[in-house]
Formats: sequence, structure tokens, C-alpha cells
Amino acid sequence: MILPNKPRGTQDIYPPRSLVYQKIQQIVIEILRKNNYQLIIFPTFEAKELFTSSLGSTTDIVHKEMYTFKDRKERVLVLRPEGTASTVRLVCQNKLVKEDYPLKLYYWANMFRYERPQKGRRREFWQLGIELINAPGVFADYQILKLVSDILQGLGIKNFDFSLNYLGNNEVREKYKSKLKKIVDEKFVPKLCDDCKIRYETNPLRILDCKEENLPFSLPSYEKLWDKESIDYVKKLTQILKKFGLPFKYDYRLVRGLDYYTGLVFEVNLGGEKTLLGGGRYDNLYHEMGKGRFPAIGFAIGIERLVDYLENFQPDSELLKIDSGVDAFFLVSDVEAYSDVLEWEKKLKGHSLIIDYNLEIRKAKTLSKIIDYYQPRLLVILGENDLKVKKILIKDCQNRQEFLVEKEKVVEWIVNYLI
Amino acid sequence: MILPNKPRGTQDIYPPRSLVYQKIQQIVIEILRKNNYQLIIFPTFEAKELFTSSLGSTTDIVHKEMYTFKDRKERVLVLRPEGTASTVRLVCQNKLVKEDYPLKLYYWANMFRYERPQKGRRREFWQLGIELINAPGVFADYQILKLVSDILQGLGIKNFDFSLNYLGNNEVREKYKSKLKKIVDEKFVPKLCDDCKIRYETNPLRILDCKEENLPFSLPSYEKLWDKESIDYVKKLTQILKKFGLPFKYDYRLVRGLDYYTGLVFEVNLGGEKTLLGGGRYDNLYHEMGKGRFPAIGFAIGIERLVDYLENFQPDSELLKIDSGVDAFFLVSDVEAYSDVLEWEKKLKGHSLIIDYNLEIRKAKTLSKIIDYYQPRLLVILGENDLKVKKILIKDCQNRQEFLVEKEKVVEWIVNYLI
Repeated sequence: MILPNKPRGTQDIYPPRSLVYQKIQQIVIEILRKNNYQLIIFPTFEAKELFTSSLGSTTDIVHKEMYTFKDRKERVLVLRPEGTASTVRLVCQNKLVKEDYPLKLYYWANMFRYERPQKGRRREFWQLGIELINAPGVFADYQILKLVSDILQGLGIKNFDFSLNYLGNNEVREKYKSKLKKIVDEKFVPKLCDDCKIRYETNPLRILDCKEENLPFSLPSYEKLWDKESIDYVKKLTQILKKFGLPFKYDYRLVRGLDYYTGLVFEVNLGGEKTLLGGGRYDNLYHEMGKGRFPAIGFAIGIERLVDYLENFQPDSELLKIDSGVDAFFLVSDVEAYSDVLEWEKKLKGHSLIIDYNLEIRKAKTLSKIIDYYQPRLLVILGENDLKVKKILIKDCQNRQEFLVEKEKVVEWIVNYLI
Repeated sequence: MILPNKPRGTQDIYPPRSLVYQKIQQIVIEILRKNNYQLIIFPTFEAKELFTSSLGSTTDIVHKEMYTFKDRKERVLVLRPEGTASTVRLVCQNKLVKEDYPLKLYYWANMFRYERPQKGRRREFWQLGIELINAPGVFADYQILKLVSDILQGLGIKNFDFSLNYLGNNEVREKYKSKLKKIVDEKFVPKLCDDCKIRYETNPLRILDCKEENLPFSLPSYEKLWDKESIDYVKKLTQILKKFGLPFKYDYRLVRGLDYYTGLVFEVNLGGEKTLLGGGRYDNLYHEMGKGRFPAIGFAIGIERLVDYLENFQPDSELLKIDSGVDAFFLVSDVEAYSDVLEWEKKLKGHSLIIDYNLEIRKAKTLSKIIDYYQPRLLVILGENDLKVKKILIKDCQNRQEFLVEKEKVVEWIVNYLI
């Protein structure tokens, strides 16, 4: 048969790149643990209504980008395009919110969007999502920005800053929508791209999602619409951010591409890759979806974008340095030697060393090829003769030194040498 | 709106259960690292042909259990029901096999089978899969059995043993099929269940998948069909297993539910949960799927089954003991105190401690409720008065002791006390 290729827009992640993902995951999980966040795992597909109602049926994601299918009972299911709606469902269905305590959750999960594949956009991609639920107020917002900062610093990312905006209460947001619609109405409808003309009809706020770089008008600024509550909030947040030294600027025109945001929205800016990360507050989402009044704030990091960013702009990053070599490789050229090798291997793995050995006897194989493939720090060579003379040849493959070690002392010698 | 429930047969995994998954994953990844296995991540969906051709179009999985859907270009895609076919595709498409060196890969991935949901069977479930590729021979087989044993021991699972069978070469397997068909032909067709009657027509070997407990006949034994090569292999494997003390027995009637197995097949037996884990050799799969001649052996562990087993049969397992409490909780009852708390938090997290604090001032909240929710080892209480007198009250919530600590020494004191 002819082996089918991977589906268009998807990716195979294998060493060394898969090990970069793993390293990032380990670092991030440790930071989240110290911040008292805990993992959730939700299903890969959900009922379609979950996303149409939470994301807004006119957003691009819902409108054009969802993988939708029916099961055998004609239920309409969707491969999740993002994690917040799934989190809302999981939290509500399992009644995870306790009284007025904050709930701190995260997911590391793959998302699916039927987009035109292009650089940095894949149809299946990985996201780390953080959700701080049932936590209103400016300290919760600060805690989330601080967590973003901790994670980026933990990953060795330098020179980032936050773009912030405050969308205010319902009244402020409605004022903004009217103002935007008025600007568009007055002068620019004919200049909108085809997508935006449709957006204009269904939800004018979605014009801001336009992927064509230049909108044919300046966006209105939120700053001018802020009421007293907004101004007080921004003052307070600014004060805290300055005090604790988080780098930020306000972008009064920043809105995010999902309908559910309220209050603070933010993005992280880095050289060259504008939206590595974004998030914001969504105080009404739990209420609108039918359960509880749980103000919440969250953000998501695209792992592919993060790795792409590191590769392009921080190629010296420690995260990209993958040492995939083994600590010791045992070259067995006599079947009788396996017995010793299996014993030694067991003991050495007890010391957390990475051990491998050849599974078939092939005397013809040259040493240099084995060193090239396994990149061992030590190569331990076991032939029939060595077993008879009770001395084992060990090569340090980095500095090309050789040692003759007594058979009884091989494990001890290797442990001393490497650890 | 009414929030839709999670789709039938899927699961929400949240704390503490999600933390059990995480613990298992961490232990297993460390064991695999020491054995020089590396992670791969493949797409969630693949072209349908990949599974129909690798698993056999008459297997239950392909025949009845795949989630199949079309994308907008009418390509027929399938949510992966297992990982070996995806691994074959990933390895071939990316040319990962180098000459005659073994390739050692693993995945930790969710699988999808449209089965009737019941205890222990879910429509989306998690699997750890291990694949040793381009590695023929009895030492490779032993290495895989040893790895299974290392993983189970690493997870604290006791009293397991292996059931082994050897399916022999093509000739032996064909003989077995004829013999099975003959037995069924002669006496038992009328007694087969409805599913098995269909299997009988399409692929008699699939009768062995029957989920109704008792087949109406005894399966033929492989032992009687073994040729010299088979007998030599079994002798050699037996010798190695005995020498290195792996617990095993032969089950000459063991066949596994997928068409691609050749040579060794195995399962791990535990009290109560028969098929926690299974695997085997598939030397022809890479060749049949159109690329290279790469003999391979692998196995998969169902994570849900593993956790179910631990909960039911090893409830005292260390893996199930989840300490989800924080190391120190700072109770802030005066907004001025946040400044100190944020400084202390930063320093304490540098010592790998889990820290949390309240985000809103609520003096009325009783201490006992906070202790109940956060389960802190230490509760640090910060009120206006405490700040003035420069002494901070710290409670050890386990032994109910209280300490008054000078404000300047809070971090130092906590580190000394806890670490």
C-alpha cells in the first residue's frame, strides 16, 4: 500500500523538537505547582453549542474554523478550538468552585482550527492555558500578569513587555461598540475587506479581528470612554505594576478576538512575534453559560509560537539545547557479555544514568558510527577477550581518553567518573 | 443558555485524579529517559486508510469503533484509535530510522474508540505506548519485557506476571488460522454469537476478539504448531527470563486483538484486571505499509485501567496519595500587607515552596474554613496590628502550634521550618 501522509496542517513532533516541548512543559508545570495551580484534562471534542455560545457565533473561530462532525447518534461534536469554554463546562459540571475561594487550574492541551495552514498557523497546535476562576479584583489581575512574567522568565525569555487595556463594565463596552459602528458607518464601509463587510452586518466588533494588516480607519480609544470605576481600576493596577516592576504600556485600542472578555485584556510583546501570548478577564462567561457568578481571568500560550520564537530570535536559548546522547553505551560483541551488561545497566540506571547497548552482535560495525548515532559520554567495549582478561575498555568519547577497568569495578568506576 | 454536558463516554479529569495521572507520567518518563526512549507527538487525526490497512479492516476497532469524519475537502479522517499505526507513519514520513540502529520511541496520548461506554471502557482514553523499532531478536524482546517490568515496579505494582505466546513465522500463523477455521467449521458455527458469525466470514482469527466471555470451543494451542525456529526462540527467551528473574508463564492460546502481530505477544496479569497491558512484535507492519523492513516490538498501557486497578486493588498505593495542600498560606486582612506578601512569596517560591494568599480582603472569613480549603502546612496571618508591632503570627496547621516571628525574618523562618 501507499502510506498516507499526515493530514494537511498537522505536525509530527519528534526528537529533538519533542524534547524541547517536554522541557518547556516541565519548567512550566513546576512554576504552576509553586503558584498552587492544578492540572485539568478535558475531552478532545465537545458539543458544538458549547463553543458557539461561549465564543460568540460570529467570531472567526466559530464561524469558519471549527472541525465539526456528527457521531452515530447525530450529535454534533467539535474538536475543541480553545480551552476556556471547555474549562467552564468542566468546572460547572463537576461543581469545582467552593464558596468564594479562587480555583486555580491549568491545561496543556492540543487545539484544532481549520485554518489555511501557513507559517506559525497549524490546524492542530498545543496550548498552555491558565484559568483563575472565582477571583475578582485588581490583585487577581496582578497575580495573573505576574504569573505570565514568572513563566516567561522561567523559560529564559528576555525583553518582553505587556500591552494592557481595560474594557470597563457593560456600559463602557456598549459605548465602544456604538462608537466603532459610527466610525465605520460614516466613512469606511466601502473600504472594508470582504470578510469585514460580513462582520459589519453581524457583529461590528469583529472587524477588529481583520487579518489584513491595515484597517482603513483608526480604532477608537477606550481611554476616552472610561468611567470613574475604569479610571480608578487603571490607576490602582498601574500603581501595583510599577511597584513590582512589571514592564507594561497601555494600548487603548487593544481588544482581543473573542466575545467573552470584560475588564482587563493583555498581550505580551516580543521582538518580531506580536501575539506570543494573550488573555484577559471574563467576568460574565460563567453566568452567561448558565451557572454561578464566577468572575475569572486567564491566558493561553501557544507552544508552537513559543518554540518558533525561540528558534528565530533566541537561538542560543538553553531550551533549544537538547543533549540526546546516552551516558554510557555498552558495545557487546560476544553474546556471553549480555549477562554482565544487563546487571550493570540495572545498577547504573539506579543512579539516574541513561544507558543503552546493542541488541544484536555485529562485529563489523565501526565504532565511529556508533559514537555518531548514540553520542555516548562513555563507550564500554565488551569482547570475548575482555571477559577473559577481566579488564574492560572504556572510552571517554568527548576527550578521547581510554581506560582499562577491572570487570568487578565497572559500575563503581562509571558512577565515579560521570556523577 | 443550558450548558451542554460532556459528550457521552468521555471524561473530565481534575484534581486530585489529574494529579495521579501527572505523577504516573512523571515516573514513567523518568524510567523511559534512563532507557534512552524519546517522546513523539503525532496528530490526533489521520487519514482513514492508515488504520484500515494497518489494523486489518475486519478488526472490531476499524469495523465498528472509529470516529470518522470528513474535512471540508472531503478527505476522510479518523480520530486515532491506537498509536502504533501513527508511529509507523511518523517514523516513515520523517525517515527516522538510521541504517541498522534501533529507534526507541514513546507516546503519551489520548485514543478514541466509539464503544458502548461501560466500566473501564471510555470513548476517549489515555495510553502510554512504547515502540522499539528496527530491532529484531530475542534480546530486543527481553529488553521490552524488562522495560514493562521496570515501569510496573516503578509504579509500585506488585504481584504481576507475564503471559507469553509465540506466534511464529508466516507459515506457523497460517497453519494456526486453518486449524482454528477447521474447528469452528466442524462443530461450532451455530453456537457463535452474532458478531462472531460475521467474523467467521471475514476473518476467522477475529473470533478470538469475542467479548462474550466463553467461546463455545477450546482455542487451538500454538505450541503444537511450532517449528524448529519457534522452539529455539522460546527456549532462548525462557532461559533469559529465568536468568534475570522475570515472572512469566506461557499461554499457548494467547493471541492479541490486532492483525499485525508476529512472533512474541504478551500480556501482564494482575489480580482482577486481566489486560492492564499488552503488546507484541510486529515485524511485517513497516514493510506491509510500504516502507523499509523494520522489525519492531511494542506495548501500550491504558492509563485509566492502571488508575482503576490501583484504586480497586492497591488503594494504599503511594501514587494515589495526593497532597494538594500549600506549604504556606498568607492571610492578608489589610491591603497594605500585600506589598510584603508579594516580596515573601517571590523568595519562598525560589525555594520550591507552594505559596498562596487571599486576593480579596474578607475579615469575616473564619480561619478554619481557610485551613480546610487550602490545607496549608503553615498559615501566616497578617493584620494591620501585626504590621505595626512588627511581629507576625504563624500557625503550624498540623500540630496546632503558634509562633510569633519578627517581620524581617519571616522568609528565613519559614524556610528553616519547612525545608
